This record gives sequence, structure tokens and C-alpha cells, in this order.
Amino acid sequence: MQNCIIHGDIFYTPEKDRSVSAPDSSLVIENGKIKGCFREIPEEFSSFRLLDCSGRLVIPALYDLHVHASQYQFRGLWMDEELLSWLNEHTFPEEAKYKDIKYAQKAYSIFAEDLYRSATARACIFATIHKDSSILLCSMLDELSMPCFVGKVNMDRNSPSILVEDTDESINETLSYVNEVSERFTYVKPIITPRFIPSCSDRLSSALARIAEDENLPVQSHLSENLSEVDWVKELCPQSESYADAYRMLGFMGKQKTVMAHCVHSLGREEEILKNENIYIAHCPDSNTNLTSGIMPARYFLDNGYRIGLGSDVAGGVSLSIFRAITDAVKVSKLYCRLVDPSFRALSFNEAFYIATKLGGSFFGRTGSFEEGYEADVVVLDDSSVSSTVQDLSVAERLERYAYLESDKPVIHKIVGGKILF
Amino acid sequence: MQNCIIHGDIFYTPEKDRSVSAPDSSLVIENGKIKGCFREIPEEFSSFRLLDCSGRLVIPALYDLHVHASQYQFRGLWMDEELLSWLNEHTFPEEAKYKDIKYAQKAYSIFAEDLYRSATARACIFATIHKDSSILLCSMLDELSMPCFVGKVNMDRNSPSILVEDTDESINETLSYVNEVSERFTYVKPIITPRFIPSCSDRLSSALARIAEDENLPVQSHLSENLSEVDWVKELCPQSESYADAYRMLGFMGKQKTVMAHCVHSLGREEEILKNENIYIAHCPDSNTNLTSGIMPARYFLDNGYRIGLGSDVAGGVSLSIFRAITDAVKVSKLYCRLVDPSFRALSFNEAFYIATKLGGSFFGRTGSFEEGYEADVVVLDDSSVSSTVQDLSVAERLERYAYLESDKPVIHKIVGGKILF
Repeated sequence: MQNCIIHGDIFYTPEKDRSVSAPDSSLVIENGKIKGCFREIPEEFSSFRLLDCSGRLVIPALYDLHVHASQYQFRGLWMDEELLSWLNEHTFPEEAKYKDIKYAQKAYSIFAEDLYRSATARACIFATIHKDSSILLCSMLDELSMPCFVGKVNMDRNSPSILVEDTDESINETLSYVNEVSERFTYVKPIITPRFIPSCSDRLSSALARIAEDENLPVQSHLSENLSEVDWVKELCPQSESYADAYRMLGFMGKQKTVMAHCVHSLGREEEILKNENIYIAHCPDSNTNLTSGIMPARYFLDNGYRIGLGSDVAGGVSLSIFRAITDAVKVSKLYCRLVDPSFRALSFNEAFYIATKLGGSFFGRTGSFEEGYEADVVVLDDSSVSSTVQDLSVAERLERYAYLESDKPVIHKIVGGKILF
Repeated sequence: MQNCIIHGDIFYTPEKDRSVSAPDSSLVIENGKIKGCFREIPEEFSSFRLLDCSGRLVIPALYDLHVHASQYQFRGLWMDEELLSWLNEHTFPEEAKYKDIKYAQKAYSIFAEDLYRSATARACIFATIHKDSSILLCSMLDELSMPCFVGKVNMDRNSPSILVEDTDESINETLSYVNEVSERFTYVKPIITPRFIPSCSDRLSSALARIAEDENLPVQSHLSENLSEVDWVKELCPQSESYADAYRMLGFMGKQKTVMAHCVHSLGREEEILKNENIYIAHCPDSNTNLTSGIMPARYFLDNGYRIGLGSDVAGGVSLSIFRAITDAVKVSKLYCRLVDPSFRALSFNEAFYIATKLGGSFFGRTGSFEEGYEADVVVLDDSSVSSTVQDLSVAERLERYAYLESDKPVIHKIVGGKILF
């Protein structure tokens, strides 16, 4: 960890309706934490290493609260399929390949490298049911100094024979996975990962909830993504009042820090359970569109103090880019207003950026902002190919345009937890 | 014009539910027209110039049926604004700048160059009310051998003082524009371009309709983009039965070949008028989302034999890429099914590609397919950065992935009307 100063055109969003722009300024990082933004570098920091990024955009790194590393190899393919055929024809057979550690080596190294080059600093990642290849993924990300939560997935029912575990084996492998990851790695941490209620028996789910509590681990899963899934859970857990309530009855939902992907159909059903301060909602707008799930009411959750972040949800979403998730979140919120509830306002760019940085980032700690004391997660962007040559743009305007037009471009510098990755 | 052969991985869609894939094959172009796709090059063509694009995707070029060249400089900016403030605060002031020919020179040259490098072969383009800068745009595109329709825009009412014409002046300038463009240019043709009913007096509209008929020119405008606009037209033309009917009463709608952008709110109001075989609908999904207009029922128009094409509608849409319009059309059609009418099926990738090529392309003639006799509009794509290294993908799968992930990348070769542009 090295003290440093990044000079450039700085932008961040300390609140959902407030942004700070500091063109031609210096961001000071001391002991891995943000010290502040300065027009002139104070004397006391003058010995810090200077990263001169003049003319570049300097912003908080982004956070991906929901991504399937094992689906990365088929991103942007088969988007015509409905959810069930998409899962059965493509997703499950692809995930089954990760039993082969050689395949995992080849495929996960591409995922890890692309995540590393992207604007994402930290992520909540689904691997597959296979312990060894899941640990391999952890080792690759740890090598790259990426502080991610990686979950070995659990599935012991309603799953194809190529991708299903015996209940006891699933529990034991999870314990073994948790121990090995916790011991071996510096940056990567384990996260308990029941795929979703339909694919985990009550006994497995309860055991996983106990492991999370005993080992003080976070939890990630899927919630209320589409209506037939919601109905299915009601059948599987007839005594539950909602999908979220079914998780709660099994020992989940808020004892441990938890991230639930989607919540497209939670309003009027289970929003009270989601209010728990340990629960994060991963909003995955591209996936919800591609799989015809619907639109999550982001405005409701944001205005009512819920904790939400953005998720790429590769490969339901086509791209790892959280810039895409930002602009997609704005876009679908407009269609929500137009087609579902005109009393809701669309998300602004600033609000979506705030969700992608400070709000979603809080899942990982005090990250996602340039306020003093925040962990220094920073990316530097080259927007020269889209910064206009015919008019002067503000820093905020340049960032908006970059997000809309250059979302998938690798960043030019990335600092995570104060460490300069490149 | 040179006879040539392009060797590569060929894909095209002769029908909405049928595609042709010809990996490692040769596309023969003779006298500017497609001769056919061959596994082995027949002896009679062996002297043709060979463009070896082995391993590259070779597809019909795309068509943009609705784009505002004068809005290109602020694409991807101010997307939080509502339509009216977006027009008044940003769009109209920007368009007013094109009175200055020096500004037009700088701005239009960026637009023309980017359109040239894109996958779009031909486009229907709005300039501004200013004759001289509109002709300058025509000259740039003509120099680049891009066979586009470019319209000098007409506006004589309900417009800001910086962007409004006297009625007689508007008519005379249009006549003079049409004459000069028709005489001077080889590839670029004029198109009559009333902005939309609210900004054109009845006298101006009627005169423009007459010019279109007398000079046998196509017409482009906007139709039923958003509901308050539809209401406004009803106020302005109380005797009309619909927005489309208002155009009809003024002398438009089908006497000449016509392209109407948007038609988001046409169903149940005016779809019978749109059935006229001279009318094309420009579907602009990104713009309709960004400006909270809604979703056009593409499935209805496609299945019922209407003529539709895709439009980027920069800068309501953020990007010139018609690949983006293809994937956006698929995406919003899914949300339409989910949120508006579950009896509609989503568009498939093949259908959206067919709309972007053969169906939309028919506005310009026999273009957009690789069937024998079609004008040769071809682009070659380098998809090496997204073609997987862990699995074999079909030509169709590679194209789908390219459209979703590499939409804004310049193409590597472009042939328009049989002429190799690069």
C-alpha cells in the first residue's frame, strides 16, 4: 500500500441527489484511505507518489453485486430464449463443465482478467457447485488483488442430473470450501450461496443458514425474479407468506449480511422483510429485460431507504460493465414510469451512479465515495474518444457520455483499497 | 464499381424467420449487384478481385431510417431531461448553431466520418432549417459515396425565435435546396422534411406536400412519438381523426415514399393509414426509452405486413449504431410483452436483424440481402475480441454476440452499391 495522489478531473456522489465535480484537482490517498480532493496539493502530501492523469476522469470504482462467473463464456448469446429453456439448454450444461478443472482454468482466467480490466473494484460472484474450480476462481482473483466475495453454489433438488449435489455432500463441501478460502486468501472471501429456494431442499438451506451464522459469513441468492418462480416457491413453501418469508423461515434474511438479486416482484409482497439493514438488493436491469422478468421499482427502494446496488448478472446481462447497468437502470426506470406507474419518477444519472458506487459499495465496507476516510477504490477513465471537440463539457457531462457510449472500455488505472493495481 | 469476391463467414436473413449462414464461403459481386454465395468460387468469377476476410463476419450493411445529424454533437448527454426541456434547453439551441457554416463544417464532418466508419450503408437524415449548412452535409456524404437522403428541416410555427422560418422563405429555400442537391450530387438525394405537424403551419405543410409530388421526392417526419404530442396535434387539427390523418389531410401519407419515425402510439388510432405501401415506420427503440415515450409494438407491425426499419434517432438515441437498435428492439419488445400485452411475442434476433437489413433497406431499393440481384451493400466485421476461445460458435451466434457486445465498433470493410468504400 502506497500513499499517492491522483491528479485529474474528479467526480463522485456523496448523496443520491448531490454530486461533487473537481476538475483539474488532486485526490490524495493515505494509508489506503481517501484523504480528500484538493485544488492545490497541501505541503504535507508533497512527497506522495503522483499519478498524473490530467484530462482524464477520476471517479470511484464501481461495484457488481451479482454476477455469475461461470456464465461469462456465453454472455451475449441465445438471448431469444425464455428463462426455462435458457437455463436447461444452455446455462446448466455450461455450468456443469466446471467440474473439469482444466475447463475452469481456461474459462475463469478470461473472466478474471476482464473483471480486472473493468471499472469494477469488488463483486459478489457465483461460481458453480464444484468446490475445486470455485477455489481456483478465488485464487485467480486473489492473485489479482480483487477483494471479491465468491460463492460455491448449492443445489440439491429440482436440478438436472449433471448439476445436482447430494445434500450431505453439499453441506460438507461448503464447509470445506469456506475453510480453505478463509485460510488461503488475502483479498477474496467466501459467501454462502444457495442458488435459490427451488434448487435447495429445506434441510440444505437450513444447514447453509447455520454455517453462515456460525462462521459469520455473508449470503447471496436470488429473490422474486419472475412471476412463475414466485408461484413455484409458494408451492414449495406453502406456509410462507412470500418468497422472502420462505428464506426467512429457513434461517436467512438479515441475520447475516445478505444480497438478494432482482426483487422485481417484491413490492406489495415482501418489502417489509427487505427493510432489514443487513439486506442488499442487487438491481440487474439488463438481465431483467433480457429474460423478460420485468422492471424492478428502483425509485421505491431508493426513496424509502433500502440498500440497493447494481449487478451485471452476466449472463442474463450481456456485459460485465456496471456503466451499462447504470444507464440501463436509468432507462428501465423511465419505462417503469411510462408503462407501470406514472407516479414514480425516473432515476437520474446521478442517482444511478450513487447506487453503483456509494450505496452498493457499502456492502463491502466504507467504499464508493471520495469523502475522507473512505477506502480508496478509484478508476481513471480515458474519455478522449467521446469528449466533444465542438463544445466544452463539464466533468459530469463527460462522465454521463462515457457511461452511455464507452461502457465496455477497459479503464486506464485502477486502485482498490489503496493499492494501485495498474 | 469493381467486380469482387468477399471470402469470409457469411450471414443474411432473406425472410424474417429464415437466415442463411455460409461459413468459409465467397460472396460474389458483379456490376454492383450480388451474384450469390458459393463454397467454391465458380470458374467464371475467378478473375474478380478477391477480398480475403477469412474468419471475419460478412453481412449485409445496416440502414438507419431516422437520424438527426445536427444532434450528433450532444449524443449521450442530458438524458435525465424530459422531452420538452430537452428540446428547449438543448436540442433547439444546438440546432440553431448550424446557421453558422463554420460550426456546421466542424460538427457535420465528425458526424459524416463516424457514419462512414459505422455499419450503416444508407440513412434518412434530418439536417436543420439552414439551407447552406444542409447542403454542406450533403456534399460531405456525397464525397464519401454514402447514398443518403438528407432533408433540410422545415419549421414555421411553435418554434423558438432562434429556429423558425417565415413560411414563404421556408418554401422557397426548400425549392432551392431540392434543386441544388438534385443537380450537384451523385449519391445524396433530397427528402422533404417537415419537422412535425406542431412546427409546420397548414400552408407550409401543404406546399411541402406539393413539392414532394411535383418533384417526385420522398418525405420524412415524426408521428405519434408521445401522448402529449398526439393531443397537441388533435388540438391543432381538430377535424383530423388521428395524427396520421392530419398528415393525410395536408397532402402527405403515401402519395410519395414516406418514412415516419416512432409510431409508438399508433395502434388503435391510425394503423390503417400506415398500411399504405409507400409508408415506412422508423422504429427507434433507444430514443423511445430515453425520452420516456414508450414502446412501439414492433411485433404487430412486423406480423401484419407493415414496412418497418430501424432508426438510431440520434440524439434521442445515444449512438449511431444500428446494431444497438437491433438489440434494443429485441429488449423493448420483451418488456412490451411483459408489461403491456402478454399476447405479443418478443422479437427474435433474426427478426430484428431482418428489419435492420432487408425490410428497412427496401426503402432505398433492392438492398439489404445477399439474394441474387440485390444491390451489394456489405460490411465485414472483426469479432475476434468476443468470439469465444472456449467453445465453437456458429456464424449466427457470433453475430448475435457482436451485436450485443461490440455494437459501436467501426467495421473493417464496407461496400455500398457495389463500391468498396474501404
